[in-house]
Formats: sequence, C-alpha cells, structure tokens
Amino acid sequence: MAYITSIITAFTVHDEVIVKARGRAISSAVDTVQILLRRFMKDVEVKSIKIGTDELKMNDGTLKPVSTIEVILTRGS
Amino acid sequence: MAYITSIITAFTVHDEVIVKARGRAISSAVDTVQILLRRFMKDVEVKSIKIGTDELKMNDGTLKPVSTIEVILTRGS
Repeated sequence: MAYITSIITAFTVHDEVIVKARGRAISSAVDTVQILLRRFMKDVEVKSIKIGTDELKMNDGTLKPVSTIEVILTRGS
Repeated sequence: MAYITSIITAFTVHDEVIVKARGRAISSAVDTVQILLRRFMKDVEVKSIKIGTDELKMNDGTLKPVSTIEVILTRGS
C-alpha cells in the first residue's frame, strides 16, 4: 500500500510515473502496478515494460548480476 | 537452469517462445530470461512484455487475484 500511495502522489504532479524494482521485489512491483490499475487509477495504463540486469557490488567486492524491471505508467489524456 | 534448457529446446523448433509466470515466480521468470539473453542465446531478444492479473480459485471457493507476466522472445532473423 505504501508503494501505491507513492505512485498516486506522484501522479498528482506528473502524467508519467516509472516503477522500478530489482531481484525478488520484481513480483511485488507487478502486484503494485496491477492493484493500482485495477482498483485505484483506472485511467492509468502501462506504456512500456523493460527488463534488464544490474551489477550489484557485494561486500567482498565481487559483482553479482540482479534482474530489474521498469514499468512506465501514463495517465490517459 | 531447467527453465533455460526448456526455452533453448523450444527455440530449436520455433522462432518465437513465450515465457509466462504468476505470483512470486515472476522474479524467477525475469532472471531466466535475462540469463538466457546474456549467456546462452545472444541472438534472441525481447519482443514484448505484458503484465496482468489472473483469478486463482482457492480451496474454499473464493477467487484470489494473482499477478502474471508474459514475455515474448524472438530470435533475430
């Protein structure tokens, strides 16, 4: 719910909001977007979705790849 | 790795493969696609990504919404 509130707040000043997540949080980001679209902001739609890989620096200095998602949401004009 | 092997096998007979996942498995699906694209099939690219919601029927008969992802992969021609 905190994420949904943040997105709704962002839409009060912007017409486009980007939701980003990494690793295990990707599933939660998709849940958040789906709940937002179905229950809270029916005039908002998914403009594009991108997936990728970030390199996370571990404590021992090694790099660990971690998946990312980026969902761009727009308010229908 | 089992998922990656399945996708590679599917590409031996098809030029387009759809990876679908629900709930917590969404993060794993993104990991699978990213590892495939970066390490195993560099000629494959993401054609489109869709997210949605399925209704799962619980044991008590109620419906529970669960997020979904669908990634369409194509081999560059």
